[in-house]
Amino acid sequence: MFYINEGFLDLHNSYLFATVSKKIEEFQKSHPDKKVIKLGIGDVTRPLAPVVIEAMHKAVDDLSRTETFKGYGPESGYNFLKEKIAEYDYKGLGITKEEIFLSDGAKSDCGNMCDLFGENLKIAIMDPVYPSYLDANVEAGRGGKFNEETGKYEKVIYMPISSENNFVPELPKEIPDVIYLCFPNNPTGTVLNKGQLKKFVDYARENKALILFDAAYEAFIQDEDIPHSIYEIEGAKEVAVEFRSFSKSAGFTGVRMASCTVPKEVCGYTRSGEKVHLNPLWDSRIAAKFNGPSYISQKGAEAVYTEEGQKQIQENLKYYRENAKIIVEGLKEAGFTVEGGQNSPYVWFKIPAGMTSWEFFDELLEKANVAGTPGSGFGPSGEGYFRLTSFGTRENTIEAMRRIKETKF
Amino acid sequence: MFYINEGFLDLHNSYLFATVSKKIEEFQKSHPDKKVIKLGIGDVTRPLAPVVIEAMHKAVDDLSRTETFKGYGPESGYNFLKEKIAEYDYKGLGITKEEIFLSDGAKSDCGNMCDLFGENLKIAIMDPVYPSYLDANVEAGRGGKFNEETGKYEKVIYMPISSENNFVPELPKEIPDVIYLCFPNNPTGTVLNKGQLKKFVDYARENKALILFDAAYEAFIQDEDIPHSIYEIEGAKEVAVEFRSFSKSAGFTGVRMASCTVPKEVCGYTRSGEKVHLNPLWDSRIAAKFNGPSYISQKGAEAVYTEEGQKQIQENLKYYRENAKIIVEGLKEAGFTVEGGQNSPYVWFKIPAGMTSWEFFDELLEKANVAGTPGSGFGPSGEGYFRLTSFGTRENTIEAMRRIKETKF
Repeated sequence: MFYINEGFLDLHNSYLFATVSKKIEEFQKSHPDKKVIKLGIGDVTRPLAPVVIEAMHKAVDDLSRTETFKGYGPESGYNFLKEKIAEYDYKGLGITKEEIFLSDGAKSDCGNMCDLFGENLKIAIMDPVYPSYLDANVEAGRGGKFNEETGKYEKVIYMPISSENNFVPELPKEIPDVIYLCFPNNPTGTVLNKGQLKKFVDYARENKALILFDAAYEAFIQDEDIPHSIYEIEGAKEVAVEFRSFSKSAGFTGVRMASCTVPKEVCGYTRSGEKVHLNPLWDSRIAAKFNGPSYISQKGAEAVYTEEGQKQIQENLKYYRENAKIIVEGLKEAGFTVEGGQNSPYVWFKIPAGMTSWEFFDELLEKANVAGTPGSGFGPSGEGYFRLTSFGTRENTIEAMRRIKETKF
Repeated sequence: MFYINEGFLDLHNSYLFATVSKKIEEFQKSHPDKKVIKLGIGDVTRPLAPVVIEAMHKAVDDLSRTETFKGYGPESGYNFLKEKIAEYDYKGLGITKEEIFLSDGAKSDCGNMCDLFGENLKIAIMDPVYPSYLDANVEAGRGGKFNEETGKYEKVIYMPISSENNFVPELPKEIPDVIYLCFPNNPTGTVLNKGQLKKFVDYARENKALILFDAAYEAFIQDEDIPHSIYEIEGAKEVAVEFRSFSKSAGFTGVRMASCTVPKEVCGYTRSGEKVHLNPLWDSRIAAKFNGPSYISQKGAEAVYTEEGQKQIQENLKYYRENAKIIVEGLKEAGFTVEGGQNSPYVWFKIPAGMTSWEFFDELLEKANVAGTPGSGFGPSGEGYFRLTSFGTRENTIEAMRRIKETKF
């Protein structure tokens, strides 16, 4: 008898972005004359860098001729790209191509990494959080029941970040087996410096926990003292797996291309106490369940690492950074307390006291015709906050800020 | 403490293709004058259809302009492609686009589907078998220990196919919860007719088991009475999930594009006996762990369904079919008993009595300078058999057959 994995039944779907879309649609219907500016979505909008386009055209042409045709590639991706990642993204950190696995996306890697987890592991996530870490673990039965009152799953350890702790998560008192960290953070746009991150690395080493470090937004870091990789922290190679993505750095959200770093040193344990290296385990997982990312995507990503490519992707990043600056300054002028935007495409701000973040969503939409994302959609500690993103056009971003400044909430 | 999933430690890696490659390399080193013809690999070699190339160039161009740029697409793929699959591949079978999920590959889908399985499910696989079904389940702890003597995992139900049962698997006596079927079969190239497949559908319905039907090779079917889809069988929608792929039909092994059909009717059960529909569960899995296939791959696949596309992919298929015919006839002339090749790119034949399939591999390489794949690499019931594939060039295929016919084994 085919019994299902009942973890799926624990899933409490918030339908965050679906609800946002529906509300915008309804507003637009009843106010057809209003031009709504959407700054809610975490997706890029600028076209790909010309060298990437050129490389992908060439890759397509490769597939049109017998002599250059490419069939199955290596399951964990081609060395031509792994070598570039090791050389550029991990410069001076001693990460080798054998520690890098290429994939179709960081979301896939973050979720699929669960295949390596033993039974009944306890996971810790930040609150607010990118929902996929949580959903993947709830589906695997590590969430337990969702408590409607607290907005939390009973088995999950939440690490709240808010103005109360300056957006620096505290080391959890109840010791987790796996810790998901995302810095620069989605949704708050906040970062950790090396000292703050080192506390987590030390804690994980002490407690033999695994850190899953999502560095999808590292390309947005501007401040010099903020680590781009967790491997800048001493000892991290023993306890951390890192996720990187071309989605936000090079605009590959539709192209699909990411990488996952599993250092040779990083270990887990058997129930009888033996150390087991995760690198060959992940390699086995890839071999059984994946056939590598698209050749075209890999060739496009390779072009990012040319001199021109590096220059060209910076142009888009600069564009988004400038948008973020406009949002931060605009919100501050409007009297809001603002986080993020400096090392992240996300701007997170405190909404007026006495309002829920959904109420603020409605008011912002009605009064300023601007759509964002209510903080509570990312977790209970997101209540009272709101997220705007820098992925809109310059014109819309400026106009949205003009409207917000003119609005009385 | 981060405990690993110890299922990974049960994995008995046969290193089949790695061993094959190594042996060829060594032979080539000691015989630099010999030209080895490789007919072992299950990968396509012909370039993509011109309409596919054109569509992918256009998709790349879409990503180069703000107005046509595509970021995140729907997690289960774009409707433009789902609609074509429903219309063309499932013509007259009543499968709708809501039942079709697009992905980067059938191997990913076959493995990831395990996320939906409850604890301690019993799986049945064919023997010989495409190794990924087995490996994914062993990693998830459903294999148990590997027995070196029998060549089998202790917890898995094996359904042997060989000349003894005319390559038609018998319904397993020990009732499985999940049944993996692959027809046209990899590696044997054999098929089931509707009556034979119906027995499995009836058996699954009777026992509330789930059938995972891998139809990756359906485009090779030539005989009219052979089903292309399991949904041609009455009742299959209640018990079967089907995997389709563009890899072999349109040469997308490097492009990565597949689909998975989860009918609205197909159900699993909770431990308390409630029926649960799998379609929304799979949708949740996709939402948490996937971000859709590459836009470029989806646009390339869409072009397969144009009138020209259908014509052009048939040219490659015809080329491979003709190779298969040459292999089948050549082997028969050389005195071998041959299976497959008619509705499949794979040809499976009985090797001379008294030899193991690895011994035959060595002899074929040394005497005829032809490389294939030893049957035992696909499972214990593959012993005594050998696989050749039709994915080589016409010239090499003809020459390989000439050599085999001249060789005395």
